[in-house]
Amino acid sequence: MALSDLKRVVRNEGGIETALGILKQRFGERFQTGQAIREQHAHTTTYIPTQAPDGVVFPQSAGEVQEIVKVCAEHRVPVIAFGTGTSLEGHVNAPGGGISVDLMQMNRILAVNPEDLDCTIEPGVTREDLNTYLRDTGLFFPIDPGANASLGGMAATRASGTNAVRYGTMRENVLSLSAVMADGRLITTARRAKKSSAGYDLTRLLIGSEGTLGVITSLTLKLYGIPQAISGGVCAFPSVEAACNAVIATIQVGIPVARIELVNALQMRAMKNYSKLDYPESPCLFVEFHGSDAGVKEQAESFGEIAEEFGGGPFLWTSVAEERAKLWKARHEAYWASLTLRPGAKALSTDVCVPISRLAECIAETEADIAEMGLIAPIVGHVGDGNFHVLVLMDINDPAEIERAEEFVARLNLRAIGMEGTCTGEHGIGQGKVAFLDRELGDSVDFMRTIKKALDPQDILNPGKIFSAGARPT
Amino acid sequence: MALSDLKRVVRNEGGIETALGILKQRFGERFQTGQAIREQHAHTTTYIPTQAPDGVVFPQSAGEVQEIVKVCAEHRVPVIAFGTGTSLEGHVNAPGGGISVDLMQMNRILAVNPEDLDCTIEPGVTREDLNTYLRDTGLFFPIDPGANASLGGMAATRASGTNAVRYGTMRENVLSLSAVMADGRLITTARRAKKSSAGYDLTRLLIGSEGTLGVITSLTLKLYGIPQAISGGVCAFPSVEAACNAVIATIQVGIPVARIELVNALQMRAMKNYSKLDYPESPCLFVEFHGSDAGVKEQAESFGEIAEEFGGGPFLWTSVAEERAKLWKARHEAYWASLTLRPGAKALSTDVCVPISRLAECIAETEADIAEMGLIAPIVGHVGDGNFHVLVLMDINDPAEIERAEEFVARLNLRAIGMEGTCTGEHGIGQGKVAFLDRELGDSVDFMRTIKKALDPQDILNPGKIFSAGARPT
Repeated sequence: MALSDLKRVVRNEGGIETALGILKQRFGERFQTGQAIREQHAHTTTYIPTQAPDGVVFPQSAGEVQEIVKVCAEHRVPVIAFGTGTSLEGHVNAPGGGISVDLMQMNRILAVNPEDLDCTIEPGVTREDLNTYLRDTGLFFPIDPGANASLGGMAATRASGTNAVRYGTMRENVLSLSAVMADGRLITTARRAKKSSAGYDLTRLLIGSEGTLGVITSLTLKLYGIPQAISGGVCAFPSVEAACNAVIATIQVGIPVARIELVNALQMRAMKNYSKLDYPESPCLFVEFHGSDAGVKEQAESFGEIAEEFGGGPFLWTSVAEERAKLWKARHEAYWASLTLRPGAKALSTDVCVPISRLAECIAETEADIAEMGLIAPIVGHVGDGNFHVLVLMDINDPAEIERAEEFVARLNLRAIGMEGTCTGEHGIGQGKVAFLDRELGDSVDFMRTIKKALDPQDILNPGKIFSAGARPT
Repeated sequence: MALSDLKRVVRNEGGIETALGILKQRFGERFQTGQAIREQHAHTTTYIPTQAPDGVVFPQSAGEVQEIVKVCAEHRVPVIAFGTGTSLEGHVNAPGGGISVDLMQMNRILAVNPEDLDCTIEPGVTREDLNTYLRDTGLFFPIDPGANASLGGMAATRASGTNAVRYGTMRENVLSLSAVMADGRLITTARRAKKSSAGYDLTRLLIGSEGTLGVITSLTLKLYGIPQAISGGVCAFPSVEAACNAVIATIQVGIPVARIELVNALQMRAMKNYSKLDYPESPCLFVEFHGSDAGVKEQAESFGEIAEEFGGGPFLWTSVAEERAKLWKARHEAYWASLTLRPGAKALSTDVCVPISRLAECIAETEADIAEMGLIAPIVGHVGDGNFHVLVLMDINDPAEIERAEEFVARLNLRAIGMEGTCTGEHGIGQGKVAFLDRELGDSVDFMRTIKKALDPQDILNPGKIFSAGARPT
């Protein structure tokens, strides 16, 4: 893999020209072709170079998305769905040009069903918008990938985050969705029942398909009651291994921990300075418990005992909202804090996920690799799921550094795969991890390609993502 | 729909003859063609008439399954995967003949990883076998569809059951699986990491595909710690509506109920007699709570308060294992108890699932329909998920009764679909619900067919199931 080695998708110049004309006429001011807006729709939080689309359209209904896809299908023009642009692996790039479909004007909350603990929304609603809207109902949507992403984008990339350990990922929290398929037809994948055995699970097929099988136009999501009480705190450990062992024990005894986040020593140093935290520069677990008043007290106390058993602690916890908020603000600021470790650097954010029994080993080997390669690269992780992130701070004007960072990422991915893990726990494949998907899943990827080809025979939906162009790398 | 209207799949006589010869030679005594064994592999707990396969083969490894599928692919012969034969909608029938692949000799537990709370097993392991094996580890696998089904079959039909309300269905509890695809290739759909965003979710695509996309040859399953404490009991309510409202309130306040089962008045009458239960003949909820000692006490007390609020109770609960066992034995014997309501009758077991807010209404209308049609048909339900079963007791030698039962089932299914629900919460489509799938999901079914055609172009994997042969009914 190299940053310059983005899959080339052949441009269909004639088709694109025609589609631009039709869409301009149909959508007027809601169709834009200025360079700034086009680049903004490809240049996201990723380190991967921008490949701008030829135009950006802002539909306001599923019917309009159908119109756009039909025009693009007729003229064989790429269609790239766009939400908040917070994906990390080049998901919204347009390697063969085409039309970026910005779904952020489709941001209505269509229904909230408190008795059923579900809601139906358009894809441009962000998770913070939704939770703000829900506040008076006593319900919330738990999935929190860090960024205030659109829920359509979160579904498309199978996002998760800090509290997946308790509430699951987007995979578990979407009851049903509607999507415009490559031929312009609009389908709804399931009913609003909590479970069903009716036919193939198209809902799950579209979740994580990164816009390559359909453009999501609505989602029915599971909601949860806001817990009666929340407790949480931070606990330092003598080593990453001790912290990981405490995580394993916590989960094994069945404490229904809502969040359990590892921050390694280097990242703690950055956060201490940036967020004015008074904790030692050693690996720490940030934990949170949801439940009844008695329940969260019991959970915190049980966790404290486990931490002590593994040499951690003291575990100071609180159920006072303001104090908890300060800790989680620091955790959410980890990205910005890490940038202070090397001012002027750009961060390459990568993620892997391994069985939790291999987590300590995987992180230890990764820290050793970081030291050996002379990189500055703090680690944070959703360790209850065995998922961790490395932020490689690099000078993207120095090709040698980029090459070293890519070499590091490749070793990290192969290490995770070698430990029965995955090359991505939550960021997705996009352009950045195409080679690793092949390494991870072998022949399965051929069957994914078969499905892609059957459902999108012209390869117009987000081409150049997930799959490599040529033969599988050996 | 009519029982006689099972989809005809054209028999490929020549191919079948050839395949029989090859398989006999290759598998010897592990390939059987006697009538009794063939009928046993199609005649299951369903009410649907038997359509026997031409032969039954008993592979002992994934490699042998590959050999079988390759022979059948070469000669275009149907391949029907078979576990314990406890499916209810004709899933294992062979409408075009072909080979039943009995996977029950593939019953090894390949790995248990206590730190990761997972295990890898062959498809012929049953849920009781697995839990017996796990007992000393302090872990268990929760999904309990009632029957002691094979875990491969449970995955293939997306099974669930009494404690799905807490632990989810097979959809949420399979981390990865291996399957032999229609071309004979063996794939593994995911790694052992707890979550992944790597490519399309082939795991979920195969779960619930009823053997039409691949033959499952191994499964990696999530496990859970056996709860420190379990409490539970039975609570009578003045009406189904009151009971359903109590269920809604229980879930809404966030009580993590492990099981919450409705038994209607008629079914209670049967169970009182059959299982010697001392409860009134009114709608009852059977509930169970898992957690710490303090936790299950708190949950039971909170539930008791809610029940009282809706006119139910008294709620007598216990954490004594023997007393709980008696209650759940009675619940598990519901099927046999119901048969005593009409000795000599055969039960047609059907299931639907609706949003929980519509559950009381759906059950009330269904009870009224039962009364109006003069049927004897008790109701039990996994009501925490909005899922309920009706057992229609009928004389299957009386065509008029069968027709009436089918008319009732059709009305029930359309009623559930009309309430934003599904025609099957956990039984699957098989042959029995083909028409309702089309009614439920419309154009989505076309895309399912496209996937089926792409992955199994010769239609050799369990043909005649899930999809209707002709155009969609209007």
